[in-house]
Amino acid sequence: MKIKGKPYRTIWPGSDGRSVEIIDQTRLPHEFVVARLSNLEEAAHAIRAMQVRGAPLIGATAAYGLWLALRVDPSDFGLKRAGNVLMETRPTAINLRWAIDRMTAWLSPLPPKERAAAAFSRAGEICDEDVAINSAIGAAGLPLLRAIASRKADGGVVNVLTHCNAGWLATVDVGTATAPIYAAHDAGIPIHVWVDETRPRNQGASLTAWELLNHGVPHSVIADNAGGHLMQHGQVDLVVVGTDRTTATGDVCNKIGTYLKALAAHDNKVPFYVAAPSPSIDWRVRDGVGEIPIENRSAREVTHLSGRLPDGSIATVALTPEGSGAANPAFDVTPARLVTGLITERGITEASEEGLRKLFPER
Amino acid sequence: MKIKGKPYRTIWPGSDGRSVEIIDQTRLPHEFVVARLSNLEEAAHAIRAMQVRGAPLIGATAAYGLWLALRVDPSDFGLKRAGNVLMETRPTAINLRWAIDRMTAWLSPLPPKERAAAAFSRAGEICDEDVAINSAIGAAGLPLLRAIASRKADGGVVNVLTHCNAGWLATVDVGTATAPIYAAHDAGIPIHVWVDETRPRNQGASLTAWELLNHGVPHSVIADNAGGHLMQHGQVDLVVVGTDRTTATGDVCNKIGTYLKALAAHDNKVPFYVAAPSPSIDWRVRDGVGEIPIENRSAREVTHLSGRLPDGSIATVALTPEGSGAANPAFDVTPARLVTGLITERGITEASEEGLRKLFPER
Repeated sequence: MKIKGKPYRTIWPGSDGRSVEIIDQTRLPHEFVVARLSNLEEAAHAIRAMQVRGAPLIGATAAYGLWLALRVDPSDFGLKRAGNVLMETRPTAINLRWAIDRMTAWLSPLPPKERAAAAFSRAGEICDEDVAINSAIGAAGLPLLRAIASRKADGGVVNVLTHCNAGWLATVDVGTATAPIYAAHDAGIPIHVWVDETRPRNQGASLTAWELLNHGVPHSVIADNAGGHLMQHGQVDLVVVGTDRTTATGDVCNKIGTYLKALAAHDNKVPFYVAAPSPSIDWRVRDGVGEIPIENRSAREVTHLSGRLPDGSIATVALTPEGSGAANPAFDVTPARLVTGLITERGITEASEEGLRKLFPER
Repeated sequence: MKIKGKPYRTIWPGSDGRSVEIIDQTRLPHEFVVARLSNLEEAAHAIRAMQVRGAPLIGATAAYGLWLALRVDPSDFGLKRAGNVLMETRPTAINLRWAIDRMTAWLSPLPPKERAAAAFSRAGEICDEDVAINSAIGAAGLPLLRAIASRKADGGVVNVLTHCNAGWLATVDVGTATAPIYAAHDAGIPIHVWVDETRPRNQGASLTAWELLNHGVPHSVIADNAGGHLMQHGQVDLVVVGTDRTTATGDVCNKIGTYLKALAAHDNKVPFYVAAPSPSIDWRVRDGVGEIPIENRSAREVTHLSGRLPDGSIATVALTPEGSGAANPAFDVTPARLVTGLITERGITEASEEGLRKLFPER
């Protein structure tokens, strides 16, 4: 998507041929900074410190991270070690394992001296594949928004609520949950997005708002608490969110708080869709609440917060009294029964084993 | 309740006999500052600037504000003017009107020279009455917590979730939602409180956490997004919240986000109680979602946030990109069907017209 008129992806090979460059998302929305990753440790750090985040982008970064590692040590041991280092950065995202497993399966049979070049090429393919998947999700979701718009009085705005950032910043480009939004906006359908700020890390307020603003999509940031009230009063036509892991039965593990919005949508008969690219589907897991491990992140993400001072500099302030502890589960699971449909790159299906198997019969 | 071992109320007569003292809540949780109110203007400012907040405490402050005014001008004109000045501080707060109307009805028939002394005495009575109501709510709610504790393995901690601050800082003492929590803690029942930070004004992170910390009640601050996940995993035994307005049919209007927690509690069969002192009941309203007007507050409360810098000073930072708008509905309505029970000063009842009429047959 565009930043100040110039098209960007979120990750791309460095012009020096020895590095990969990313948008440092920890600096958004206050500063646009490109960071260079030159080795495995920097790639792992970028994932761990959430300079890159979002399941598809994590997968892409891990793929390039393997390339950076293999440039130094292309042995079987080096490949295995690099996979382990990258795998440990974020425990919940399925794309991480998917990307590492896939890269490892490709690279293992090759002679070590060919592995780095092959990894570079395969990482690029993973990126292109992500963009193609997301564009297909946009095309699949567009009719939903068009149908809502057509039921409205002439020029009536379609109000979409989204949580966290499943936008182009979470992927290589286009985004998952945002794909239908951008598709509709670009098709001239009047859209307004309610952007959950998404505490504690505020990916909505800092990333989704920033990318919608840059692309020119009207939006309003809201506290995560506000969505239920808006739905009670008919101010939300559709909810669309992303997924970090989708079970074979259609349960959806996504950013903490997604489940609360799904409950409110269900209670108010607001359609609740999940943009679920097939790499997010974990075919081995059937019970999302019972089986998916939920990452507990640092209490400091709850007790402290960074923002922009009036002079433009960035400061971190404490919100809680000294001595109060905090807990910080990072994801929750929305049971399939609360999901109206899954928007995949092969079309929309109901959130159920039947629905998923019908779209992906090869699994 | 206690601050560093010393018992406090949130408002009390100054030792000089000519002023009233309050805890300046705009400085919490970072600094404990007592402010002295010496005249009508200072009392009005304290309410307007939210140095005092919470419906019962606003009412008590207005009552003392009338006393301060009558010390200077006890005439009919002076009484009427003071009432008007105070009424305009927070025009929508119901307890404010209730306290001013009640004080005026008491004081008008008296000779002017007796009014100041009578006002001082009546203001004290209003405070004592609030404490008595809240203590009765604590006594009524205590058996709920005791019953949960008794079902746990020896010494098992009772996990209570609360939203916003319906604590002693919102009242003269004890609090409403916190009353059963303090009663249980003081009775030796092991309690742990999940404190919703309560965006956008963070009354949970700044006020509820502070008062629980000072009274020694174990607690953890959580993002408002986290409660559903905790309930899915059996980590919440009971939810208890306050109410800004309760309808005759048991709907509850409380801080934005309360409805989402009620949905999650219902979905996970976690008891959801509302501490509802009878002054919060609006007997004229039957349909909370349809009839209660919801205050839309400044977008800046969503886009900016204040906290403590490492050097101890307070700073305000921007969270959103320049150019992104925000919406800020301040309350939502939880339908009675999601409320397990109302804890009133006359005991616990179901959230229904029948239940409320049974406890308050005189209405």
